[in-house]
Amino acid sequence: MNWKAEIKAAADRISGYTVTTPIMTTDALWERPVAIKLEHLQHTGSFKARGAFNTLRAVDVPAGGVVAASGGNHGAAVGFAAHRLGHKAQIFVPEIAGPAKIALIERTGADLTVVPGEYADALDMAKRHEQRHGAMQVHAYDAPLTVAGQGTCLREWEAQGLDADTVLIAVGGGGLIGGSLAWNQGARKIVAVEPASCNTLHAAMTAGAPVDVSVSGVAANALGARRIGQICFDLAREHATPVVTVTDTAITDAQRLLWQAHRLLVEPAGACALAALISGAYIPAPDERVAVLLCGGNIAPDPLG
Amino acid sequence: MNWKAEIKAAADRISGYTVTTPIMTTDALWERPVAIKLEHLQHTGSFKARGAFNTLRAVDVPAGGVVAASGGNHGAAVGFAAHRLGHKAQIFVPEIAGPAKIALIERTGADLTVVPGEYADALDMAKRHEQRHGAMQVHAYDAPLTVAGQGTCLREWEAQGLDADTVLIAVGGGGLIGGSLAWNQGARKIVAVEPASCNTLHAAMTAGAPVDVSVSGVAANALGARRIGQICFDLAREHATPVVTVTDTAITDAQRLLWQAHRLLVEPAGACALAALISGAYIPAPDERVAVLLCGGNIAPDPLG
Repeated sequence: MNWKAEIKAAADRISGYTVTTPIMTTDALWERPVAIKLEHLQHTGSFKARGAFNTLRAVDVPAGGVVAASGGNHGAAVGFAAHRLGHKAQIFVPEIAGPAKIALIERTGADLTVVPGEYADALDMAKRHEQRHGAMQVHAYDAPLTVAGQGTCLREWEAQGLDADTVLIAVGGGGLIGGSLAWNQGARKIVAVEPASCNTLHAAMTAGAPVDVSVSGVAANALGARRIGQICFDLAREHATPVVTVTDTAITDAQRLLWQAHRLLVEPAGACALAALISGAYIPAPDERVAVLLCGGNIAPDPLG
Repeated sequence: MNWKAEIKAAADRISGYTVTTPIMTTDALWERPVAIKLEHLQHTGSFKARGAFNTLRAVDVPAGGVVAASGGNHGAAVGFAAHRLGHKAQIFVPEIAGPAKIALIERTGADLTVVPGEYADALDMAKRHEQRHGAMQVHAYDAPLTVAGQGTCLREWEAQGLDADTVLIAVGGGGLIGGSLAWNQGARKIVAVEPASCNTLHAAMTAGAPVDVSVSGVAANALGARRIGQICFDLAREHATPVVTVTDTAITDAQRLLWQAHRLLVEPAGACALAALISGAYIPAPDERVAVLLCGGNIAPDPLG
């Protein structure tokens, strides 16, 4: 696949539907200046809007509408994009998504079914809905249009003047980092960061193929895919992507630091990449310029009730 | 006073001590795209760090250190700047500041005294401390170095490519809008926005001179100066600055919209300028391009506890 061309096409498709998320550089997070991109300010509070708009703008959506399974953020993005483009949407979320994300999806106008269990259970329900109702499945991470959409984030950051040797990116199912690796093509170092309790990519790299892992911890409703996507895995192996894992404590410390230093309120998944830097899970070289992608802001409980 | 030169000098003084706050453009807040600057992501959560660093870098700070009276944001900024520059700081805050802002000031390492009453009472205490201990007073808004520091915010926004005919800015004592008017010199339309319950500038423009007003409402701990600063008043009269007032409900609606649309969590004062737009208190012309400055993010309670 010509990923550069796919991601360029995705950027054209989503232009005007997503926002160009802001960037900043700060010395208040770590011992040296760090570049950050505030992708959690994207519509629906995560990068997922990119893949959703790219998918729905690239295909002929059937009369049955769209269906998605989601820990919350992808479902909100698909619901939002479907509403904006005039399609009906059915979203299946696992209970683990929690009330704040469930309310977020409801506000998009999508039909919502809460499924007992975790993400993989919601995905099973979504596949059944797809077959029964002729709806179009929008996969959360392991589909080329999704990955290409998420890849527009790093492309956009480069156009904004990203000045870094290394970019730290959180991993769940692998859509965001897959898209980033696909755009990057080895130009910079990309470091994958996973919660130790949701280590799909680390487990896959160790095993030599995607394998199921059990998922838990503070970021599980966003990063708790049971198995890394094949597209991401292939890209990570091709580029020998380093993978580091972080503890839940490191994640919540990073969350608190972002709030106290800069009034940036992110969900645990959104602080995961920074956690690698401040906890020492990833130690840059003395002259290595580091950038961190903040990818999700849908914290619970909703801070304004 | 040559304000352009003063503000340019201020920008040089604070460079490396404040962050360049991000900007974005969004169609999710109002019926047309709105440019916003996320000044609430500044160190200590408001624009006040600009005036504090400008003041402390421009003068010889006495051995008695610095003293400030503050509803919370200015005190945090002075405490932060003093600590960064190696001076001791004594901050007087009124009870109205609330526990979140009081904790914020404590984290800067400043000595803190909580004063019964409102901002003016804290200012009286600060003046007595200044005389007794030979400390240097850093005024929250009505001093040229403070105003010039705050003026660097609009200057920075212009350098970032601000594309708007009109900028909406909240008013408390008048430091931020005073600095903005001083930099702007009539180039764009600047609209002053006040809570109806803290209308220092509106009352002064009506009376023809600064007058005392009573202050209350959701934004009072940030915008609750009792009287507009003379510097700001003179600039507002010189430029015939329009002043609109907004209700507390409009302010909390704007706060909620910023969170739900973009995961921007601001305090009531930080949403005040946007409230004028979305409530219809200010109605732009059909082709008028509007920008809104988000100026403070120190909400209570602290969303992460």
